[in-house]
Amino acid sequence: MLLENRSNPAESSAMTGKLEGIFVPMLVPYDEGGEVNEAELRRFIRWLIEDGVHGLYPNGSTGEATRLTADERRLVTKITCEEAAGKVPVIAGMAEANARESLRACEHAASCGAAAVAIVAPFFYRLTQDSVYAYFAEIARNSPINIVLYNIPSFANPIAVETVQRLAELPRVVGIKDSSGDVPSMMRMIAAIRPSRPEFSFLTGWDPVLVPMLLAGCNGGTNASANVIPQQMRQMFELFRAGDVQAAIRLQHRILPAFDLMLQSFEFPDGFRAGAELNGFSFGFLRVPQTSHQSEERATRKRKLGALLCELGSRT
Amino acid sequence: MLLENRSNPAESSAMTGKLEGIFVPMLVPYDEGGEVNEAELRRFIRWLIEDGVHGLYPNGSTGEATRLTADERRLVTKITCEEAAGKVPVIAGMAEANARESLRACEHAASCGAAAVAIVAPFFYRLTQDSVYAYFAEIARNSPINIVLYNIPSFANPIAVETVQRLAELPRVVGIKDSSGDVPSMMRMIAAIRPSRPEFSFLTGWDPVLVPMLLAGCNGGTNASANVIPQQMRQMFELFRAGDVQAAIRLQHRILPAFDLMLQSFEFPDGFRAGAELNGFSFGFLRVPQTSHQSEERATRKRKLGALLCELGSRT
Amino acid sequence: MLLENRSNPAESSAMTGKLEGIFVPMLVPYDEGGEVNEAELRRFIRWLIEDGVHGLYPNGSTGEATRLTADERRLVTKITCEEAAGKVPVIAGMAEANARESLRACEHAASCGAAAVAIVAPFFYRLTQDSVYAYFAEIARNSPINIVLYNIPSFANPIAVETVQRLAELPRVVGIKDSSGDVPSMMRMIAAIRPSRPEFSFLTGWDPVLVPMLLAGCNGGTNASANVIPQQMRQMFELFRAGDVQAAIRLQHRILPAFDLMLQSFEFPDGFRAGAELNGFSFGFLRVPQTSHQSEERATRKRKLGALLCELGSRT
Amino acid sequence: MLLENRSNPAESSAMTGKLEGIFVPMLVPYDEGGEVNEAELRRFIRWLIEDGVHGLYPNGSTGEATRLTADERRLVTKITCEEAAGKVPVIAGMAEANARESLRACEHAASCGAAAVAIVAPFFYRLTQDSVYAYFAEIARNSPINIVLYNIPSFANPIAVETVQRLAELPRVVGIKDSSGDVPSMMRMIAAIRPSRPEFSFLTGWDPVLVPMLLAGCNGGTNASANVIPQQMRQMFELFRAGDVQAAIRLQHRILPAFDLMLQSFEFPDGFRAGAELNGFSFGFLRVPQTSHQSEERATRKRKLGALLCELGSRT
Repeated sequence: MLLENRSNPAESSAMTGKLEGIFVPMLVPYDEGGEVNEAELRRFIRWLIEDGVHGLYPNGSTGEATRLTADERRLVTKITCEEAAGKVPVIAGMAEANARESLRACEHAASCGAAAVAIVAPFFYRLTQDSVYAYFAEIARNSPINIVLYNIPSFANPIAVETVQRLAELPRVVGIKDSSGDVPSMMRMIAAIRPSRPEFSFLTGWDPVLVPMLLAGCNGGTNASANVIPQQMRQMFELFRAGDVQAAIRLQHRILPAFDLMLQSFEFPDGFRAGAELNGFSFGFLRVPQTSHQSEERATRKRKLGALLCELGSRT
Repeated sequence: MLLENRSNPAESSAMTGKLEGIFVPMLVPYDEGGEVNEAELRRFIRWLIEDGVHGLYPNGSTGEATRLTADERRLVTKITCEEAAGKVPVIAGMAEANARESLRACEHAASCGAAAVAIVAPFFYRLTQDSVYAYFAEIARNSPINIVLYNIPSFANPIAVETVQRLAELPRVVGIKDSSGDVPSMMRMIAAIRPSRPEFSFLTGWDPVLVPMLLAGCNGGTNASANVIPQQMRQMFELFRAGDVQAAIRLQHRILPAFDLMLQSFEFPDGFRAGAELNGFSFGFLRVPQTSHQSEERATRKRKLGALLCELGSRT
Repeated sequence: MLLENRSNPAESSAMTGKLEGIFVPMLVPYDEGGEVNEAELRRFIRWLIEDGVHGLYPNGSTGEATRLTADERRLVTKITCEEAAGKVPVIAGMAEANARESLRACEHAASCGAAAVAIVAPFFYRLTQDSVYAYFAEIARNSPINIVLYNIPSFANPIAVETVQRLAELPRVVGIKDSSGDVPSMMRMIAAIRPSRPEFSFLTGWDPVLVPMLLAGCNGGTNASANVIPQQMRQMFELFRAGDVQAAIRLQHRILPAFDLMLQSFEFPDGFRAGAELNGFSFGFLRVPQTSHQSEERATRKRKLGALLCELGSRT
Repeated sequence: MLLENRSNPAESSAMTGKLEGIFVPMLVPYDEGGEVNEAELRRFIRWLIEDGVHGLYPNGSTGEATRLTADERRLVTKITCEEAAGKVPVIAGMAEANARESLRACEHAASCGAAAVAIVAPFFYRLTQDSVYAYFAEIARNSPINIVLYNIPSFANPIAVETVQRLAELPRVVGIKDSSGDVPSMMRMIAAIRPSRPEFSFLTGWDPVLVPMLLAGCNGGTNASANVIPQQMRQMFELFRAGDVQAAIRLQHRILPAFDLMLQSFEFPDGFRAGAELNGFSFGFLRVPQTSHQSEERATRKRKLGALLCELGSRT
């Protein structure tokens, strides 16, 4: 029962609204003046949809959400929803200054036609779990749109399993994106919540454990790598759903070196931006100034990444 | 030479612009609708100036800077500069989304008449020291106003001693506020920078080591406690400057229990808000929703804090 | 190729000496005087062998190795090898003061007939990876017996993937027990080492990810839970080897609550000792004094554990 | 009252047994075979006593206590007590496997004539504060000799202020050596314990804050640097006691670069060993094997250290 989630994501998503499959936490391209490059963003989204991702996730960490202004985040959400156009669901990320601002962003996302919003736990200040709970509960009780909790303990306050369980009592809370990569923690959440909320969605944001997380019962992932190798990420998911766990884990093994390089050898998320550039997109400069030494290193590492992606068959 | 900084802060500040003495990282009061309570903020600032603090520091962590919108931060800066009115210097804090937004906020602070701005290191994402350097350098090369680096490694990326040293080569960088509480680290920074930049200002943001930090060579502090007990904080500084180190450390000892209670038993910075309420100000609700259980606990702890502050002679 | 490790552990172990399957990091029973209870230890080992574990692992963290004297560790190794008597392989753990003492313990383990030794990374002092490498290399170049590296970063210096890779060039180094629970890290090690050392053994010491780790390519585990539920641990391994990954992960889910309780609600490894007591063994007092309050709590939690183990079918 | 500790350490120590002043956590020299070099150890101790340290502290972290066997630790204690010969007090460190072994080591230290023992908090396993308390309480209730708690949270379980306070109710517990370097934490301990135990001794093990810690009320330090520059460490203490805090902190500033180099650029405690070698002693190889690359780096850094020590006036 805990683990029976083998329906087709596209179908079930259309039928039930359940969030399943591979969502792309989308990168944001900038133009020469440093502004959001709307035309390139639209072209990138169309490419992602054509390549078969199951859903879109603007304004996540990969999308440099906290480095955009509130207005820019709304622009990105609006563009994404327009391009998705009902073909794939959109989970609109947000990283606002406080609960009231989050609610305003929820209203905007709802008006754009997003399927749900994903709200990162409060960051900067360290909070007790009571305050983490109260923050999400305040939003969930007033939001016009469904909410996915976003747990990323390396960057923001952690959301403990007990807190997720309490929040899952609120109907607007329909899922969690967990970027901790902690498999037993995911199993504890699934065990605590799925029996009473079978439609609650568990998504992993830690790409190198996608298959182990699916095995543990996850419904899918929101994976930075899907900006670069969407077909391979979707294939991993589909192999698993088709019951060929061994083929899925072999693909997981093959993808790991490229993920490691993109994550560890660049300022996040610039490695994924470099990877997407290799697919013919123009992303402009990261929203953190870089020294000339860093720019030279980026060029070297991008060449190395190109070779790795060729081996993966993502480039010809 | 390293440690000779015994001039009168008010005087020397007027003469040289050097940032010295006790700056208050000001709390922000909200009204019943949750908006910045402008009238109460002005009343609070006037009280602080009358009580003799050496300077004001709006939009620090204590001022919930990251929980305000960019517009609200500008409002707080403007109000503070208007009330300071040249009587005391203002260091305008900021916590913007990226370097470009920070520059815009620098321009605004300059137009308001702030003495300098204080910019927190990038937070949320973990950055290399090269990127921390490049972020501040980009701003420092384009800012119309002097810059104080703000190091708070428990909440944001750390600024390593070597990075501070590199940034001190830029004339616009005139000081550092360090909230690490790490005395040897402060000594390393002073040894690395003071010989070539004697006017560079070293301020500690960790109240319970104010006197040890002054002994180590600091020019002053930006201390949350000064929102609650401004006279005692200033007295600690003045006792030290007058050469009575033993009296200064006795006062440091006396103040510690109240600081510990305000810091550890409330969601930051709500303990300091509770303390300031005990002085007759109205601060409204913290910008993080609280459960009813938390609100009850706050009331209990506020009573305990009242007793501690009475012992300190800050209330009659 | 990376993942093809489906041979029968008992057979292949006999044929090739490869370390595979479920090893028990054995608990140590004490008598009323606090001495190692030799008779009960022998009875416990015989029970484990009868219950079908694939191998024994005395003097791991679960065996309180660092709380035993060097002489006591040798006694436990000797008893274990005598009772194993060639029926199952023994990996003799050790936690000696320095490399020379480790070598002496290696000689002793070899003389007892152990299949290999497992050596924990240096602890207490924080070392560079160069020193971690040099420590193991010094032992590996002089040991008369094969060596398993023991990585437990929560208690001792971590052994980085690159260090494992360098050490795997030494023929005496034949495996690693990794208690980090980090699945991608395990995949990186397997990818780095298995191509050139196909017989190198990768064992996980983190029970709640046994199945994901097997899926990632591990050869087995050394699992504290096997002291309490050896049949279920072995069954998880065998279901996986038989290709029924879904049944294996269902069992992993079922076992998790008991593991969590044993790990988190007792001073390690006292939860596992309480579990083994419920199977009819007498373990005496943990080698850390406990307050009377702690002893009362232990009794309560042991009752709760008993109920969980009944549900698991490990008690009748 | 809290801070009145200006008596002469030698005198008061003789009169009251209170542990005051600069204790040397002694390095251990090895001969070519790697054994404790007894003759050189005796020569080193005599030099330390002649250079005026207030006390000796064998078997601390600087003495590689956990890398010695229990027998070697006893040998070092015995030699130290013989050479001290009542001229200076000896605090005998220990790092035994469990409480019973610690008690045996206490008995040995008492029989050697040590003034007290210093017992490091349990390490490797992570313990609750209840267990940390119970460990020390078990020893304190049965020890024939006074006990100094040893808090070094970077290597071992921390001893919380509350736990120190509880343990200070036991008469055998007469002091704490705290290597955290946390000045406010030291102030909290002093505030909690000194009123009821005025003779309780607070010693800092973090050299670069010796003067701030004395200012905060400490009775002295156990400082690795005193192996290398005993005169300067003692002078810092004496300047402070004579009331010249500014001269003391200037010396603290001067000493910092050498301390940083010894601590950060060598495997601990090898930088201090290199420093002591520059004073004409022979220490042999560290008890952690080093690669040839590391040995070359050591030689380079030792030369740099020699230059720094010359500037400090410790070498001619």
